[in-house]
Amino acid sequence: MKAERLSLNQITVDQCSLPETVAACVELGIGSVALWRHKVAETGLAETAKLLQDSGLRVSSLCRGGMFPAVDSADSRRRADDNRRAVDEAAELGADVLVLVCGPAPDRDLARARRQVTEGIAELLPYAQANGVRLGVEPLHPMMISARSVVVTLAQANDIVEAFDSPWLGVVIDAYHVWWDPELAEQLRRATGRIVGFHVSDWLQDTPDVVYGRGLMGEGMIDLPGLAAAVEAAGWTGPVEVEILNKQIWTRDPSELLAEIRQRFVDHV
Amino acid sequence: MKAERLSLNQITVDQCSLPETVAACVELGIGSVALWRHKVAETGLAETAKLLQDSGLRVSSLCRGGMFPAVDSADSRRRADDNRRAVDEAAELGADVLVLVCGPAPDRDLARARRQVTEGIAELLPYAQANGVRLGVEPLHPMMISARSVVVTLAQANDIVEAFDSPWLGVVIDAYHVWWDPELAEQLRRATGRIVGFHVSDWLQDTPDVVYGRGLMGEGMIDLPGLAAAVEAAGWTGPVEVEILNKQIWTRDPSELLAEIRQRFVDHV
Repeated sequence: MKAERLSLNQITVDQCSLPETVAACVELGIGSVALWRHKVAETGLAETAKLLQDSGLRVSSLCRGGMFPAVDSADSRRRADDNRRAVDEAAELGADVLVLVCGPAPDRDLARARRQVTEGIAELLPYAQANGVRLGVEPLHPMMISARSVVVTLAQANDIVEAFDSPWLGVVIDAYHVWWDPELAEQLRRATGRIVGFHVSDWLQDTPDVVYGRGLMGEGMIDLPGLAAAVEAAGWTGPVEVEILNKQIWTRDPSELLAEIRQRFVDHV
Repeated sequence: MKAERLSLNQITVDQCSLPETVAACVELGIGSVALWRHKVAETGLAETAKLLQDSGLRVSSLCRGGMFPAVDSADSRRRADDNRRAVDEAAELGADVLVLVCGPAPDRDLARARRQVTEGIAELLPYAQANGVRLGVEPLHPMMISARSVVVTLAQANDIVEAFDSPWLGVVIDAYHVWWDPELAEQLRRATGRIVGFHVSDWLQDTPDVVYGRGLMGEGMIDLPGLAAAVEAAGWTGPVEVEILNKQIWTRDPSELLAEIRQRFVDHV
């Protein structure tokens, strides 16, 4: 894929502070960046917004809101408050989309947790719209169900997004999370016009870790060009985030790593 | 669940030889056992068959046939030969079912690998029927797609089994592999009358390993009683295998471990 589409998700260089990541993007001619809230908080929200404005970088997404399923009503209120803060931050940073990682179930009742996700989005969506922030439901890989998300298939995310039928709510496609799905082609077609983000990395044949074991594009098993073509056919022509959670690459020299990532993006996506 | 339904999958006590496992089952009053081919081979097929006959144990399954996707036609022939040997072994052991772990893709073409699975079953099924061996397609967790199986959902397994519509081919439900699936209830109903095996273990909140990190029943996140009720409603009243791949429990004293497993089976399934 053309390098112009590349957005660097900052978690890929977790060894860097936010100012270091911004500087590296500018130096390498990467035009977009995706931010994580805990990294923004380290630098400060206003300082981050100023840094980005000065840099001219586009913010393709902010990660993350969501985490809806709660143990009780007080917990639910805390989560709703935090989600409104996430919307505020996305608005201040001018992020294209606030990514929703929907959260795990607090107990063994998956059906109830899934209902809480829909209820949480229903509560948040008007606030997001009022603040001009688009929300993106990201289905996560089923191996992350107990720690991060009860939304584990694109079909589920499509069900949610179709039910609201709002221009302020779409789906985020992450290659690592969806590539295994036998229904992928069909569900991507179904998502046409509702895709609000696309993330790439690779699935290593022997995954060393459930969370922190992603590969660089081209190192693994995912047909990234095929997936990228299907996502584009479904209408997504915006930034493509490289988002790699991998403890090994976090020990590498960031400049050298980013140069390799840029080349792999061109060669393997 | 009543202890009478318990079948011990021998991989749960991988620290034991096959004769040790058989002896432990007899001692604890466990009536069924599930075997793995590499463990049978260690003891010898004829010797294993004799041991089992003498013990009075039922063999709920033999693991495994499958691994269909091949890199070329010679590889495909080798795999077909091995699958016929697996059928022969299942017949000699009197196993209720030969479990099919369908295999990973040899490259990035998942669609082609999935076609090879169907073609492989089509080739094997008449041989299985001729030898009185039932085959069971076991969908594996999507995190095992690159190492073990391109069949990752019960919907997919149901598609395959319905297409053949044979009493000699059914689906095997393993709680660990299917519990995350938003379509699970619907696909279990669809599988009514075609379930040929049911395996239990648990999903730990923080999975320590992609393959060898299963929990004991009741330690984790799966609603096992709810799943067991749905599987029974779909017609399965046969043995329920406890199949736990976990490097930590393989260091434990087998007698003490099996006593705990028996109690957890009664309390948590």
